[in-house]
Formats: sequence, structure tokens, C-alpha cells
Amino acid sequence: MTAAPPLTSHPDPAAVQAVLDRLFPLLGDRLTVSREVRAQHGRDESYHTPHPPDAVAFPETTEEVAAIVGACAAHRVPVIPFGTGTALEGHVIALHGGICVDLSRMNAILAVRPEDMDVTVQAGVTRKQLNEHLRDTGLFFPIDPGADASLGGMAATRASGTNAVRYGTMREAVLALTVVTASGEIVRTARRARKSAAGYDLTRVFVGSEGTLGVITEVTLRLHGIPECVLSAVCPFPTLRAAVDTVIETIQHGVPIARIELLDVNQIRAVNAYSRTEYTEAPTLFLEFHGSDAHAREQVATVQAIATEHGARGFQWAETLEERNRLWQARHNAYYAGLALKPGAKGFSSDVCVPISRLADCIEDTERDLAASSATTALVGHVGDGNFHVLFIFDPDQPAEIAEARRLNARIVERALAMEGTCTGEHGIGLGKMPYLVQEHGPQGLALMRAIKQALDPLGIMNPGKMVG
Amino acid sequence: MTAAPPLTSHPDPAAVQAVLDRLFPLLGDRLTVSREVRAQHGRDESYHTPHPPDAVAFPETTEEVAAIVGACAAHRVPVIPFGTGTALEGHVIALHGGICVDLSRMNAILAVRPEDMDVTVQAGVTRKQLNEHLRDTGLFFPIDPGADASLGGMAATRASGTNAVRYGTMREAVLALTVVTASGEIVRTARRARKSAAGYDLTRVFVGSEGTLGVITEVTLRLHGIPECVLSAVCPFPTLRAAVDTVIETIQHGVPIARIELLDVNQIRAVNAYSRTEYTEAPTLFLEFHGSDAHAREQVATVQAIATEHGARGFQWAETLEERNRLWQARHNAYYAGLALKPGAKGFSSDVCVPISRLADCIEDTERDLAASSATTALVGHVGDGNFHVLFIFDPDQPAEIAEARRLNARIVERALAMEGTCTGEHGIGLGKMPYLVQEHGPQGLALMRAIKQALDPLGIMNPGKMVG
Repeated sequence: MTAAPPLTSHPDPAAVQAVLDRLFPLLGDRLTVSREVRAQHGRDESYHTPHPPDAVAFPETTEEVAAIVGACAAHRVPVIPFGTGTALEGHVIALHGGICVDLSRMNAILAVRPEDMDVTVQAGVTRKQLNEHLRDTGLFFPIDPGADASLGGMAATRASGTNAVRYGTMREAVLALTVVTASGEIVRTARRARKSAAGYDLTRVFVGSEGTLGVITEVTLRLHGIPECVLSAVCPFPTLRAAVDTVIETIQHGVPIARIELLDVNQIRAVNAYSRTEYTEAPTLFLEFHGSDAHAREQVATVQAIATEHGARGFQWAETLEERNRLWQARHNAYYAGLALKPGAKGFSSDVCVPISRLADCIEDTERDLAASSATTALVGHVGDGNFHVLFIFDPDQPAEIAEARRLNARIVERALAMEGTCTGEHGIGLGKMPYLVQEHGPQGLALMRAIKQALDPLGIMNPGKMVG
Repeated sequence: MTAAPPLTSHPDPAAVQAVLDRLFPLLGDRLTVSREVRAQHGRDESYHTPHPPDAVAFPETTEEVAAIVGACAAHRVPVIPFGTGTALEGHVIALHGGICVDLSRMNAILAVRPEDMDVTVQAGVTRKQLNEHLRDTGLFFPIDPGADASLGGMAATRASGTNAVRYGTMREAVLALTVVTASGEIVRTARRARKSAAGYDLTRVFVGSEGTLGVITEVTLRLHGIPECVLSAVCPFPTLRAAVDTVIETIQHGVPIARIELLDVNQIRAVNAYSRTEYTEAPTLFLEFHGSDAHAREQVATVQAIATEHGARGFQWAETLEERNRLWQARHNAYYAGLALKPGAKGFSSDVCVPISRLADCIEDTERDLAASSATTALVGHVGDGNFHVLFIFDPDQPAEIAEARRLNARIVERALAMEGTCTGEHGIGLGKMPYLVQEHGPQGLALMRAIKQALDPLGIMNPGKMVG
């Protein structure tokens, strides 16, 4: 399973030492070569083989990051930006050694501007920290990729999550970034205006660049008003297709639903076991409606009518804030619930996203594959976007289990690409999906990406060996 | 006023001839050196001094565009993509000669997919043509930059318009592009999934690139359902600030208003004269509400309450479809109405966009400048986005008028930049705003843009002399 490319070029130890010598006066004990700290920073939550960096730095300001990258550029030593280490495709593994830039101390909320519904944070602020801070403003930040990830990391991986169907992904949420380029310069990618036609879209060049073009140090984000009314429900369906068809029609009706999440029977069982819930063991949608009281109820009526047509027996409402939180916590823990199905196992997750009209076919064909296989799996999806995950749970010591998971995963990606979909809706390429990137974009598309990489990181020091290779 | 840079490098006539010789067998009479056709293609709707290309090609397919660009790359001859010529900053002027690629014959609607709410068109299809074609599907394409521009041109300039406050700009509307790169390769920038984390965001590298990185030949766009209920109104206010404060509070309340447009007294007078309307001569908002019947009326109630608090005496409703079309046609003709204030005059338009909380200050300070000046002006704005235009109407033979317009424009841009805004919300950089691009992004930001330009167009043949120089 561990497809890490060979470590062809580790930096010269003398170069690393020169960087450390240069940075030590600046960072003191915020620069460490401790084996334990390095090991913690050489892995994420994925199945990929960890590899530690040569050192870990804990900057507190953009200027310190610029100094770190400048030193690394001078000696051609790799730089690996690190948020919370919750990525799923090996994004932060220090394949070629180098200096890991851990942004967790850059956790200041720099400006909240309720009158503009935006906020500027340092890159290490996490999404939960931000929402906690916003609590009294009547505003919230909607994007929730399950883990309590850092906002810099979420920008770097173009993250999304359950609310994206209504509020968009990090692509739409980021108004501007402060970035340290591969040469150690500080660049602000945009002003705070809601739209701009001033030159190339530098913001979106860096959103989703996975640390391969520079280090994101500050993020300016759009916020949204906390809706007057929030209604959450769970709805089991007789078949998976009935559930997915309900989603498709909801989207086609233009209902501005806030969340619409699919869990297959395996996933529901896993959730019940892990989160001590008692959901009906059936293909299930988790739903949420935001709006004024009247508008939210209008949306509910539309979706209930569609669900009923597809054989649903009704919505089970989360009546209190506690019940609502419990419901979404159970959903957010789906990945960990899946892993717990098979103690000691490892997991990896497919992440395809297809045009909504193809979703039912894509999921049904996938479930047929899974049913015919011995693999342990659970399926969960942000189906309003056409995005779903199959979690493969395997014993890392059983090559046959690994091979079977790989085979099934390749079929899922090929099916999605044939349906004009993408190999990754939100997890990113990292190490794990590099072969699929060229399948998706073709050699010409990959050549353009490599030209951009070469232009902005000519020394190849930024998170080397990832995404575009 | 005509700030065109010197024509430092025209291609060698032998190089142009070699390109023509290579392309003639392919294009026949769809390749022309007619003086008249060249002159038509050497200008847009702006005040910038026209300059004709050496020849104009009328391709019908992406492959033909690839052949044209390939030939130009082989002989290092400039390529200038041309949509409808309705840009306002000299985008299509052939400063350095070369081959103009007129995309107007690429006007096929390639696929409408109501079930995915998206469409793929050739780049020469105009927004009105698309909406005409969609008429029976229940779907529409919302972005409307006034002119009936081509969708390829709109993507290339990151256009927006009156509906952007609700539906976003071309940045959000474009799902994928087919692009001919500067070396003549054909690249599809993305699949049709609603979101993707697969590599660099090539789509948004090209959206807003103004023909400087490649030729956009096909565009895949999101569509939206035609709302059940559309309500349009006009509302005069006692003061400009009262009108703008109404806008700010509407946005801060999170009302999903579909259009909210400001016209100052001069602009209302110009509209009344040009479109034979009888709007009250006062600072005025043009508004539109989309939704279900109940939801649209709920939005109306909220905005009416806000407007009343700011001294408005009430909404004048456009009761019929004809009245509604007349209202928005009057708004869309505001630019031409402004020009008609002074027969024989030329115009140019500022295009700043600021964070919404600064909008009232920005507009009020601007109006104070304008009131103290002898310049003829009209102000109109997509104020829900924080974007507004001052149209300067001047006699091109009067250097003093030109100098005064320039002085006022520079002050508007500086004010917007000081408020964390942008020099251009939607018109783009072209020739006219090149000095402001560096003011807005700083030398580091501009250096990044130039690195991208150099990487994707190493020969510098794509629309040379524009945007990044």
C-alpha cells in the first residue's frame, strides 16, 4: 500500500546544518531536531509510510516563516508546511527530509470585521477555534472537513466538507492569502474586495497547491450569518438508489440545502457502534436546513415530498441543539468509526466527485463492486456536491487485503473519470493520488501544472515529491 | 488620455507572411488582411488609441485555433484573442500587430445538461444567445456585464455585472475551460465535477488572464434555475448616503438579493434622457428579488424596512415582464446613456470595488471630488459587491478635460486601494490600468504574475503589452 517514491535526493547534511545554524539565533528552542518531534511531523492520518523531516521549526510570524524559507532556499533544503497533520494523502511526509514548518503557534485571529463579514487569521488557527471566537458576532465559518484542521492547511488543500453544497469550498471562502514564496518573499495575493479583475488570480493559484508553491501564513475568509433557523434530520431509505435519487432531485430543484450527507448500511452500523447511536440500519441521509424560519420550513417541505416519493418513511428530527450536535458529531466521526470496525486496521479513503446526474450510477456500480469483494468498507458522502468516500479498512500485514483495496479504489477512480468527474473532491493529491492526477488532466494539463511549479519554485524545495512530482 | 505604450516590437513582416502562408490552406477566406476588417479588430469600446492587427482569422474549431497559435508560435508572431470587442480597457488593441483570433464563428452551444445544471459552449457564444437557447429548460445563465459579450471574453476578463451579488462572477460560474496554450496545445482545465482538489486550479489561472496566457475556445458554465418569483423595483432616496447605507445593511443582513444597483442623480438624468424613462431625479437603487413567492416577499419586506429607515418613500414596482425588461435595459444602457450626455465625447469608466463597510465613505468622498470638479460624470454601481463606476465623459480634443478626468480617476483608485479595495472589480487591467496593477499587488505580487506569464507564454506572443506588460 505504501507507494512512497524512492528518496532520490536528501539534502546534504552540511546544507541542513547551515540552515539550522542560520535559524537558531532567530528561533532558539522553537527549532528542534528531537527525534520524537520529527517523527510526529513525518506522518499524517493516512496509510502512507512516514518519513521524518531533518528538523521542525515553530515560527510565530510571517517574517519568521520568510526567514526560514529564505535560509532553506539559500542552501536548497526542502520546506514542508505543517498544519495539524490531519491530511489523508501523505501531504506532510518529509520524503526528502528538510525543514518542517509547523504553523501551530501562528494561531492568532488578527482581525474580525463583522461589518464586512470577513476575518483574517494566522494560518495555524483551526476551524473550531475560529468559530468559538466568532460565537458572539452572529457570524460563522461554515467549512468543516471533519477534523479540526488549521485554516492554512484547509486553504492549501482546497478543503470542503458537509456544508459545501450550500456555502462552497475553500476555493470560494478564501478572499486573500499572505504567502511566503519559495524564494522567501512575502506576498499578499489580493485585497479584501468581494470581487476583482486585477490580474491573475494569485489567491486561487495557492488555494489547493498543497505546500508545493509556498507557505500560506495568513488567510482572509468570508463569513456567513448564523441562520435564524437550523433544522437537522436523519432519514433512512429502502435502497441506496432511493436515497441518492432524493439528493439528485433536491439539487435539481435548486433547494439551498445546507447539508445532505449519505451513509451506506456499513457506515451506519459503524457509526452506531462508535458513537453509541441507534440509527436504523439502512441507507441514510443526514440533512440540515438553514434560513429564516419560513424559508427553512419551505425547504423541508420540498425535500420531504421528494423523499416520500422515493419511499422514505419520514424525517427523524434532532429537536435540541444537543441532539443536533450529537448528530453531526456522529457524522464527523464517520472516518474514525469506520476504522474502528476492524481493530488494528489501517484505512484509506477514495474521494471521487462526479456531476450530480451520474451520482446514483456511480454509487450503485461502486456498491456492486464492494458487495462482490471481501474488503471491509464503509461509504459516506457529501452527495449534494456529487462527492463520496469509500473507506477501505485493511490489515497492513495482509498483502492480499491491500491489493484488493487498491484494485477497488482504481476502479472507483476510473469510473468517476469516465463520468467527467474528478479523482479527488476534497482530500487532494498528496502522495496517494499522483498517478490519478495525470489520468485526470492528461499530459498537457500536467505539463501546465509543472510549468507553474517550475516558475514559482525553481529550486524545487517546496514540499518536494508531492502532487506534480 | 491615450496612454498606449510605444510599439517597440512589431513582428518581422516576413514572419507574418510565413504564418499567413501556413494558415491560408486551412482557413481560406476566413483569414483576411483587409484594412477594414483589421481596423474593426484593432479597437474596443474604450478611449484607447486603436491599433490594427496584421491579419484577422475566423476559426470554427478548437483545432483551428491550435493551428493558428502553433503557426504564430513557430514564427513568434503575436496572437490577440477577440470576442465581441466590448471591453473597456483596450484589451484587444493589437499594440504589436500580429494575428487577431476572432472567435465569433465559434458560436455553437455544444451541450446543455439540465440534469447537471451546466452547459458547454464554444467561446464565441454570447450571453444573450445562451439564455435564448436555454429558454425552455427552466434554467438561465445569470452573469450580465451590460454588453452582449461572448462567454469566452467574459471568462477571459473575469466579468460580472448586476447579478453577481447573488450568483457570483465568472470566477464562480466557470466549471472548466478548453484552452489553446501559447505553444498551440489543447488543454482542458478541469472535469465537470462541482468541486475538485486535483492539482493547481488551472481553470482559475485562465479566468481573468485577458488572453495573455492562451486562447479560451470552450467554456463549461454553471446554470441556475429560473426563480419561481422575480420582483423588480426602483427606489429613490433623499441622499446618496441613505441609498448606500441601505445597500450595506441589506448585505449585512444576509438578504440573498439578486440585484441592487445604485445610480446617482447625473446617471438617472442620463438614463431618463437616453431610455425615455421618467425616474425621479434622485440617488436611486434598482432592485431585484428572486426566490419562491414567499421567500422573495420575505426579502422585499426586510429591504423595504431598511430603506424606509433611511428615508426612502417606497418602491416603484415593475409590474409586468415588459416593465421589468425596460427597467433592466435602462440600467444596462447606463454607459451609453452617460456617453450621450455630451455628443461626440468619449468616455472612460473607473471600476473600483471596496469592502462593503467602506462603500458609503468611498462613494461620498468620490462625489465630493466630482462636485468640486468641472468634469462631466455619471456614477453607477453594482453596490451589493462594493463595486461602482464613475463614467468620465470628455472631449478628446480638450487636453484639460482629459487631464482632469485622469486626476479624478487616480484619486478614486488610490482611495479604494487605501480601503483594501481593488482598482478593478470587473473591467480588468487591459492597457488602461497597468500602472494600478503594481500599486495594488506590489512588486512581489507583480513578480509572481510575471513568473506565471513567463512560464506559460515563454515567447511572449499572447496579447503582448497587456496586463503584466
